[in-house]
Amino acid sequence: MSTAMDSSTLGETLLQQVDGRQRVVIEGVYPEIDCGQFPIKRVTGQSVVVEADVFADGHDSISCQVLYRSDTERDWRAQSMRLLENGRWRAEIQVTKLGQYRYTLEGWIDPFKTWRHDLMKRVKVPQDLRIDFLIGADLLEDAAGRASGADSLRLADSARLLRGDSDQESKVEVALSDETAALMDHYPARRFATRYDKELIVIVEREKALFSTWYEVFPRSCAPEPGRHGTFHGTFKDCEAWLPYISSMGFDVLYLPPIHPIGRTFRKGKNNSVVAQPDDVGSPWAIGADEGGHMSVHPQLGTLDDFRHLVSKAKECGLEVALDIAFQCSPDHPYTREHPEWFRKRPDGSIQYAENPPKKYQDIYPFDFETPQWRQLWDELRNVLVFWIQQGVRIFRVDNPHTKALRFWQWVITSLKEEYPDILFLAEAFTRPQLMYRLAKLGFSQSYTYFTWRNTKQELTDYFSELTHGKTSDYFRPNLWPNTPDILPEFLQVGSRPAFMIRLILAATLGSNYGIYGPAFELCENAAAAPGSEEYLNSEKYELKHRDLNWPLSLKNLIARVNQIRRDNPALQSNRNLRFHETDNPLVICYSKSTDDHSDTIVVVVNLDAFHTQPSWINLDLESLELDPNRSFQAHDLLSDGRYLWQGKRNYVELVPESMPAHILRVRRRIRSERDFDYYL
Amino acid sequence: MSTAMDSSTLGETLLQQVDGRQRVVIEGVYPEIDCGQFPIKRVTGQSVVVEADVFADGHDSISCQVLYRSDTERDWRAQSMRLLENGRWRAEIQVTKLGQYRYTLEGWIDPFKTWRHDLMKRVKVPQDLRIDFLIGADLLEDAAGRASGADSLRLADSARLLRGDSDQESKVEVALSDETAALMDHYPARRFATRYDKELIVIVEREKALFSTWYEVFPRSCAPEPGRHGTFHGTFKDCEAWLPYISSMGFDVLYLPPIHPIGRTFRKGKNNSVVAQPDDVGSPWAIGADEGGHMSVHPQLGTLDDFRHLVSKAKECGLEVALDIAFQCSPDHPYTREHPEWFRKRPDGSIQYAENPPKKYQDIYPFDFETPQWRQLWDELRNVLVFWIQQGVRIFRVDNPHTKALRFWQWVITSLKEEYPDILFLAEAFTRPQLMYRLAKLGFSQSYTYFTWRNTKQELTDYFSELTHGKTSDYFRPNLWPNTPDILPEFLQVGSRPAFMIRLILAATLGSNYGIYGPAFELCENAAAAPGSEEYLNSEKYELKHRDLNWPLSLKNLIARVNQIRRDNPALQSNRNLRFHETDNPLVICYSKSTDDHSDTIVVVVNLDAFHTQPSWINLDLESLELDPNRSFQAHDLLSDGRYLWQGKRNYVELVPESMPAHILRVRRRIRSERDFDYYL
Repeated sequence: MSTAMDSSTLGETLLQQVDGRQRVVIEGVYPEIDCGQFPIKRVTGQSVVVEADVFADGHDSISCQVLYRSDTERDWRAQSMRLLENGRWRAEIQVTKLGQYRYTLEGWIDPFKTWRHDLMKRVKVPQDLRIDFLIGADLLEDAAGRASGADSLRLADSARLLRGDSDQESKVEVALSDETAALMDHYPARRFATRYDKELIVIVEREKALFSTWYEVFPRSCAPEPGRHGTFHGTFKDCEAWLPYISSMGFDVLYLPPIHPIGRTFRKGKNNSVVAQPDDVGSPWAIGADEGGHMSVHPQLGTLDDFRHLVSKAKECGLEVALDIAFQCSPDHPYTREHPEWFRKRPDGSIQYAENPPKKYQDIYPFDFETPQWRQLWDELRNVLVFWIQQGVRIFRVDNPHTKALRFWQWVITSLKEEYPDILFLAEAFTRPQLMYRLAKLGFSQSYTYFTWRNTKQELTDYFSELTHGKTSDYFRPNLWPNTPDILPEFLQVGSRPAFMIRLILAATLGSNYGIYGPAFELCENAAAAPGSEEYLNSEKYELKHRDLNWPLSLKNLIARVNQIRRDNPALQSNRNLRFHETDNPLVICYSKSTDDHSDTIVVVVNLDAFHTQPSWINLDLESLELDPNRSFQAHDLLSDGRYLWQGKRNYVELVPESMPAHILRVRRRIRSERDFDYYL
Repeated sequence: MSTAMDSSTLGETLLQQVDGRQRVVIEGVYPEIDCGQFPIKRVTGQSVVVEADVFADGHDSISCQVLYRSDTERDWRAQSMRLLENGRWRAEIQVTKLGQYRYTLEGWIDPFKTWRHDLMKRVKVPQDLRIDFLIGADLLEDAAGRASGADSLRLADSARLLRGDSDQESKVEVALSDETAALMDHYPARRFATRYDKELIVIVEREKALFSTWYEVFPRSCAPEPGRHGTFHGTFKDCEAWLPYISSMGFDVLYLPPIHPIGRTFRKGKNNSVVAQPDDVGSPWAIGADEGGHMSVHPQLGTLDDFRHLVSKAKECGLEVALDIAFQCSPDHPYTREHPEWFRKRPDGSIQYAENPPKKYQDIYPFDFETPQWRQLWDELRNVLVFWIQQGVRIFRVDNPHTKALRFWQWVITSLKEEYPDILFLAEAFTRPQLMYRLAKLGFSQSYTYFTWRNTKQELTDYFSELTHGKTSDYFRPNLWPNTPDILPEFLQVGSRPAFMIRLILAATLGSNYGIYGPAFELCENAAAAPGSEEYLNSEKYELKHRDLNWPLSLKNLIARVNQIRRDNPALQSNRNLRFHETDNPLVICYSKSTDDHSDTIVVVVNLDAFHTQPSWINLDLESLELDPNRSFQAHDLLSDGRYLWQGKRNYVELVPESMPAHILRVRRRIRSERDFDYYL
C-alpha cells in the first residue's frame, strides 16, 4: 500500500491549487456578464438579487452568503443566502453609493445545520441519542469560542446542557430551538469554505441613468424670428428663452447637437448638397475650423461663458444639458495640422476622408485608431470630455461610438467615472446587436435602440422582451427615440399626427428613458427628403429653422401630460417590470409595468393603426398584476381621466387614433367593498 | 491641448493590459463550458464545431480562425472560420488522437478583404480609382513579403500591375479575382490580431465512451448449479462459462459488482436483514475483511490470476470487463486499523458509520474526505485504480461518486488519464441535476441518468431534449439503465414482459450507451421486496442466485436483435442527432437519429403502454430527416423485417405490446423511380 504518486502536469496542478477539503461548489451565478468580464449596472438605491447553485457532495447541509463592498470600503459585508429549491440560493443586496461595488459568494458545509437536520429525523424513532448530543455539544462549544459576550455564554450553556444529565426531551428542545439555530447561524464555522473564483462588479450610477426624458434641440434654430434670407443664427441666449417651453413639456435632459466651430472645406449645403452656398451654415457634426475644435464653441452660438450660463439656467428649469460628442473632424480642424499622425494617409499624402463606398464624405475625417500614437489620441479625446465636464456637463450623447475603437470607450468611460461618478453616456449606435450590446457592456449608461423601426405588435413584443428580461437588462439600458435628426421613420411619414401620438406614447411607456428630436416632433414634421428616404426634407442638419411653437395642433400638451404621468408613476421609471398581455386584435398592443410592491401598476393599451379605430378584447395576465379575478378594479385612464370598472381577465377597449390612440391606465384596487362606498387606491 | 492624464487604478489597468489597436472582439464562443473551466468531450474521429461572435468597430472586414493542437504538439494548427450571418462565425476541427486538445480563436481586421469589398462597390459608379489601386498594391506587396516562392512572385506581379499603366478593367480583374483573394487569405497580415482570452480544452476518449452496451452480472451467481442449501458460490471461472451467452446478446462491456473480500461485522442478511445467518454471503459493496481490501479479490471468487484470466477471456468474446469502484469500507477493512485517520470518529472513539437518519448502515464506513490526511487518502484511492488498471481493467463504474469529494474526482480522473488516456469512468450518481452534471464536467466519461424513472412521452421528450441538445451534450454522456440491482422500477414491476421490451428498446435507441442488470432483466424478474419499494425481492445484493437462462420467454433473442441493429446502424451510435416527432397518441412516442450525411436514418416508434394495443398517426419532421414530401420511401422495420411504403408527413402505426411494442425503422430512400423497379438504399 505504498502511496508513490506518479501524476503528470495537469493532475499535479489540480492538486496544488486546492485544499481538497473545500467540498462546496458555487456555479450558475447570476447576475454575471460574460464570465464576469463586464460589470452589471444599477442606480443608487436599487438592489441586486444574486442567485447561485451552491452544493456539495453527499448529504450535508450547506450555508452560503454573498460578500459585497463598495470600492471605498475595505471589508466585505455579508448577506446570508436563502435556499429556493434544488440547490438554488438567493440573496438581495443594496447598492446605495455612486461608483463601484464588488460582490462574490462563499459557501461551506454547515456541520450544525447538518446535525440539527439529522436530529429532527432521529427523534422520530426512539433511540439512544447520547452520542449525538455530545457531537452537538462540540459544535456549540466551538461556536461559543467564536462568539463573545452574552452569545458566547449562551452557547456554552447549551453545550453544557447537552453534555449533562438533563432528560432527552430538554436536550432536544435546546438543540432544535430557533434561538440556538439563530445563534449558530450568526457564528458560522465556515470550515473549508469555498470562495467563488470571481469578484463581480456593479457600476452604480445616479437615478437619471434609469429614468430620463430627453429633448433634442439645435440652439442655432432658437432665434426668436428669422432674419433676412432666413439666416438669423440662433444663440445660446436664444436657447435660454426656450427653456420654459421645453421644461413645461416635462423634459429633464436638454440635448444639444455639437456646438463647435463648423468646417468650411467640403461643407455640405442644404439638403446635404455637395456644394454649399456662401450662407449655408454646414453640419454641426463637421467639427473644427480656424476658430477651434472640440474644446471650442461656435462663435455664432456665443461664448464659453454663454454656454455655461445656458447650463445653469437650464438647471434652474429642471433641465440638464447633454452634449453631443462626435469624435471626428472637418478638414479644417486644428488637429489635422497639429496631429496629422492621428489620421490615416492615402498614398497621395492626403488624409483619408470618411467613406461608405460608393458614397464619400469628404467633409469628415475619421480618427485612425490604429495610429502608432493611439495613446496620445486616447488622452486627447479624454481631455475633450474632461473639458466639458469642467464646464458643468455631466451627460454625453456619443455620436456613432461603434465606429471608434471599442477598447477606447471602455478605458475612457471607466477612468472618467472613477473621477466623476455622476457622468452618464448615451451610445448612439444603430448597428448589429452584438456591437450595440458590447458598447453597453463597456460602460455606456444608456443606448439608442431599434425601437425607432419597431412598429408591429410582434416586433415590439419580441424586441422589448429581449431588452427587459434576462441578462441584457443587467447592463443595457434602452433610450427610445421615435425620431432623430437623422431618422424620420416611414411610420411617421405616412401616419401624420396620430402616428406621432402613437410613437410618443409607446416610447414614453415602453422605456423609462426616451427622447424626441424637437420641435420637429411635437409639430409633427413628416416630410421626407425623397421617397424611400428617412432623411428630413430641408433637414435641420444643414440649415437654420424657424418654427411656430404655437401651432394649434402641436402635441406639446399631450407630451406634457405623458411626461407628468411618467413622473407621477414610479412603475414607469424602470424597465425590468415590463409585461405584455394578450389582445385579440393584432393592431392593439397591451403591456403593463408595476412597482415591486404593486403599489403602482400601469396598464398601457395602444392602437398601432394610425388610420382606423380599433376595438379589442385584452386578456390581462391577472397573476402578474396581482389582481384578484373575482374582484373588480378601477382602470383609470390618466390620459383622458376616464374611469372604467374592470373585472377578470377579459376587458374591452376601443381606440380612435385621431382623438387618442391609447389608454394609460392606472390600476386602482378596491380597498372597501359592500356597505362602504367604493374607494380605490 | 496638453495630454496630462489623471486616471486612477481601474482605468490605468485597462490601459496597460492592451494594445489599444486590437479592435476585434471575440465573444459568445461555443462550445465553452462554465467560462472554459471544464473541458468538452469527444471521441476519436469526431469533430468539434466551433462558433463565435467576432466583430469590430466600424465597417472593416474581418477574418478569424480557430487555433488548435493536441497536447503533444507544440505548434497551433489554424482552421479558417467562415461567416454565417450577423457576425457569427464557424469552423470545424477534427480531433484524431486520444488525450487532450486545446483550442482558441484569433480575429483581425483584414485590410485586403475590406479594400476588395469596397472596390466591388466603387466600380459600380464611374470614378477615378488610381489611389485605390495604389492602396491595394501596398497590401499585395506586404503579402508578397510574407509569402515565398511562386506565391510571393504572383502577389508582387499583381501589385506591380495595380501600380502600372494597365487599363482600369485589367486592374479590377486582378484585384477582384478569386485567385488573388485565395492567395491573400493564405498570407494574412493579422495585424493587431485579437487572441481569445481563454484556451479551451477537448478531452478525446476512445469510441466506447460514446457507444457501449453494458451487461451487469454478479460472478458469484454464475455457478452452473446450486449447491446444497443453495450456497454454491460462483467463481470467475464460472463467469467465464457465461461469456458466450452474454456475447451472443451483443454486449461489449461486462460490468462486475465489487469483487473484493466482504466484511463480516454487521453483515447484512438476505433481503437486507440486519442480522445475517452464518451462511449469508453479504453485500459485495461492504468491502474489506481479514483477507484484504480494495486491492484484493474475494477468495471464493478465485485468485487475482483467475480475474486476469477472466478479463482476457472476455476480451476474446468482444467483452471488456468494467469494475465497480465503491470507495467505502466494511468495519473489517484493513484500512480501519491501518489508517483510522481516514475515517470520522464519534465522541465515543468509534468510527462513524454511514447514515441517512433515522436509517443506520453500520456495515459501511465512509471515508472522511475532510481528514487532515486527505492527500494520503487521495493517493491511496488513486493507487487502487492504478492497481486494477495494471490487472487489465480500463473501465470503472464508480459507485455513488456524488458522496465523495468532487475535487478528488477531478484530480484522480485527470491525473490518471494523463497516463492512461484509454480509461473510462461511469458515474453512478442518482442525485440532483447540478451534481450529476458537475461529475460529468469533472471528468466522468459516462453518467447514469433519470431514464430509469422517465416513462411518459412528455417525460422522455423533455429529458432527452435536455440531455442531447445544448451545452449538456458537450460534456455529459448518458448511459441508460432500465434496471439495476438497486432499482426495479415500478413500470417493470407492474408491466411484466412487454414493459421489459419497451424499456429495453427505449434504452437501446434513445441512448448510444445503455446497459442492463442481467439475467434479472432478460428473465423479466419483476417481484419487488415490498409494495412501494424499488428493491428486488430476494435481492442478489445479499444472496446467491441460480437462474434458468433458457427460460422460454427470455428476452435474450430480442436483446441480441436490438444490439445487432445498434451495431449495424451508425445513427444509433451517438446522441446529439436525436429528434422527436409528433404523434397523435400520447401513449406512442416517435423519434429519429440520423448520421450527419443522412446515409443512415433510423425512426423509432414505441408504444409506451405495456397493456394495450395503441394505434397512432405519426407526424414526421421531414425536413430534419431530409425526406422529400413528394416521394415515397421505405420504412424497413429492423425488428420484424416488415417493410412499409410511407410518404409525406403523416403515417400510421399500430403496436401490440405482447408481440412487439415498437418499430425500429430504417429509412430506405428510393433511388430509382418509374420504369425502373423500385430500389431503396
